[in-house]
Amino acid sequence: MTGLTSKSKAAKSKAVPSRRTIQPEERSHEVDHPSSQLAMFGADQPLRLDCGVDLAPFQIAYQTYGELNADKSNAILVCHALTGDQHVANPHPVTGKPGWWETLVGPGRPLDPARYFIICSNVIGGCMGSTGPASINPATGKAFGLDFPIITVPDMVRAQAMLIDRLGIDTLFAVVGGSMGGMQVLQWTAAYPQRVFAALAIACATRHSAQNIAFHELGRQAVMADPDWDHGRYAEKGIHPHRGLAVARMAAHITYLSDAALHRKFGRRMQDRELPTFSFDADFQVESYLRYQGSSFVERFDANSYLYLTRAMDYFDIAADHNGVLAKAFTGIKTRFCVVSFTSDWLFPTSESRALVHALNASNARVSFAEIETDKGHDAFLLDVPEFFEIASAFLDSAGHARGLTARGE
Amino acid sequence: MTGLTSKSKAAKSKAVPSRRTIQPEERSHEVDHPSSQLAMFGADQPLRLDCGVDLAPFQIAYQTYGELNADKSNAILVCHALTGDQHVANPHPVTGKPGWWETLVGPGRPLDPARYFIICSNVIGGCMGSTGPASINPATGKAFGLDFPIITVPDMVRAQAMLIDRLGIDTLFAVVGGSMGGMQVLQWTAAYPQRVFAALAIACATRHSAQNIAFHELGRQAVMADPDWDHGRYAEKGIHPHRGLAVARMAAHITYLSDAALHRKFGRRMQDRELPTFSFDADFQVESYLRYQGSSFVERFDANSYLYLTRAMDYFDIAADHNGVLAKAFTGIKTRFCVVSFTSDWLFPTSESRALVHALNASNARVSFAEIETDKGHDAFLLDVPEFFEIASAFLDSAGHARGLTARGE
Repeated sequence: MTGLTSKSKAAKSKAVPSRRTIQPEERSHEVDHPSSQLAMFGADQPLRLDCGVDLAPFQIAYQTYGELNADKSNAILVCHALTGDQHVANPHPVTGKPGWWETLVGPGRPLDPARYFIICSNVIGGCMGSTGPASINPATGKAFGLDFPIITVPDMVRAQAMLIDRLGIDTLFAVVGGSMGGMQVLQWTAAYPQRVFAALAIACATRHSAQNIAFHELGRQAVMADPDWDHGRYAEKGIHPHRGLAVARMAAHITYLSDAALHRKFGRRMQDRELPTFSFDADFQVESYLRYQGSSFVERFDANSYLYLTRAMDYFDIAADHNGVLAKAFTGIKTRFCVVSFTSDWLFPTSESRALVHALNASNARVSFAEIETDKGHDAFLLDVPEFFEIASAFLDSAGHARGLTARGE
Repeated sequence: MTGLTSKSKAAKSKAVPSRRTIQPEERSHEVDHPSSQLAMFGADQPLRLDCGVDLAPFQIAYQTYGELNADKSNAILVCHALTGDQHVANPHPVTGKPGWWETLVGPGRPLDPARYFIICSNVIGGCMGSTGPASINPATGKAFGLDFPIITVPDMVRAQAMLIDRLGIDTLFAVVGGSMGGMQVLQWTAAYPQRVFAALAIACATRHSAQNIAFHELGRQAVMADPDWDHGRYAEKGIHPHRGLAVARMAAHITYLSDAALHRKFGRRMQDRELPTFSFDADFQVESYLRYQGSSFVERFDANSYLYLTRAMDYFDIAADHNGVLAKAFTGIKTRFCVVSFTSDWLFPTSESRALVHALNASNARVSFAEIETDKGHDAFLLDVPEFFEIASAFLDSAGHARGLTARGE
């Protein structure tokens, strides 16, 4: 034994860093008073939830880009993914970062506000202005926490339909989304087929797989294991289970990438050093990256919202509402579909998209399908993948022509 | 708003259950006083660790099965995986469950004690009797915790070699292991090529991938996020970060299975019910299963040991010690290799085994390689996979013949 305790560097370990460059108040303010347009629904307009609860009052926060044309035929609803929000193409009011889908939405992009009236609303159950577990419960004056009812993807879509009614729009030209956003796209076509002219469903599935439920359960258990979660009542005490939520985000983030992408981006490269520290420091770049993903996420997202939205995805299963026969969900549908998957996406693999396309074919629906070759994993739908943009543009141009929309430059 | 708070079932959520059918004392007693044979190494025989520390004194706990023959030519070393231990083919002293590899080791099995002298030792850094972070630090009288030096896979093998010396064995007939055990097999051949007649490396790799490092970092952060971890000093306070460790185990467990296996075993089936509870209860069978995996693991494993052993796997990279050229690690080697991978193993995919086989071929080593078709994922190496047993038997029979061992029944 030669000076073991004094020479060991293992004691220099770090837990998930608790950076706080963004004040918690900034995030919590957005919950009830968002930097967005608001649609308020009173006691006379409850949202009928699948769990049997009538939610009222409630509010939906949304952003719009472009102008609705005279015959209201150019509206596109963009549906956001699990940790997204309505700030699709403008700087985020909390983080200041660019909109999350500026690769797809914006001047000269496939969804161009010069041509379309683009709407994106925060989902019910979210934490950026639409009513959710972080919102103030009018019955108690405190945040709902776990008193908020469990919501489903159909509930999200029902709330969006009420917003679209409020905006005076009968038929959406298109509904577009990826991941949980893609689930909403599919639910729109199953629940309101006459109201959707074209549907662009990206990197998604008609139901959540056992492996995906497992990863979500892992994330929820990470949040619930944090004593600061306090059975969901943290907001009353002015705390937030940021350690548990950061771990949940780290787990999810691994599933958004691919083995190949991680290898390309990080491999076994060390962080700011050449030799291992022989400690629990973030020696490898991939460790620093993950820690950053975890700690930056907790600054902008509510932990209970994360529980509710992952649960909604787990419950999603379109076929289950049609005696287990997926094709029945789309019988007689006139909507034009474009389904897109990515080769390295193991969260929503191509096999899931193919099952959807088969069901649509069995329903005699119009559907085009593209599997795009990329090593970027599930995240590919948010990244710069030119082939994806070309497919989205061509699909919307073609549908727009059928809808009588003026083409770009005409 | 119609009775939302009263009707919601969401409040019935459960965190990771903290079952305690096994007393913590039972586990901690095994750390220093294992139900195994012990090899003690004093101050004059330090273990030279890669981090630069000389560890002394230290002890290695091990089990043996069968008898060493007169010319000491029938010894097989079995190397255990991350959460395994030396109890390969006898009931576990803490859990009472059967040995972890009784599918492979035992009467009539490929590793038959009637024929071979089988040795399995707890790795250095473990928590079942070999010196590790849970052991009492003789310098302080308290558990080492993070004062334990960082250990590596080569360190584990160096300690095993000292045990083999102690047992008076010069050359092992075979070294056998899967996952982290397979890493040790490969390290044995790279470090002590003359001492290994045959090497059976299963579901492993010569280095840990970025994705695997990411999953390990996730697990470590889950442990460190638990306030009961207390910077590794929990043992002094008689507590254990069981919530964080359970989350880490859940994450790892998902990686041990395959999407297909999860689908086959659980699909979207509900647990003891037909309709969703609209709550955070474990509605789906896969959720119950994961929660059980998490809570049962913490009863038998030490959280700091988990940190140290995952770190050792992350650091593992045989080629790095040979200027990045893997083949150089095996130049001139006489050992007979058998490399086995499983088609649905995404933790150590076949591509990793293939890279190893290419390097062995480039070194003119004797190597056979089998990729076994199964949907059981990484866990396949521990399960009942007859094709794997046939390959293991055939390889050992052939090597035994070359070694002059009497065949079974002769």
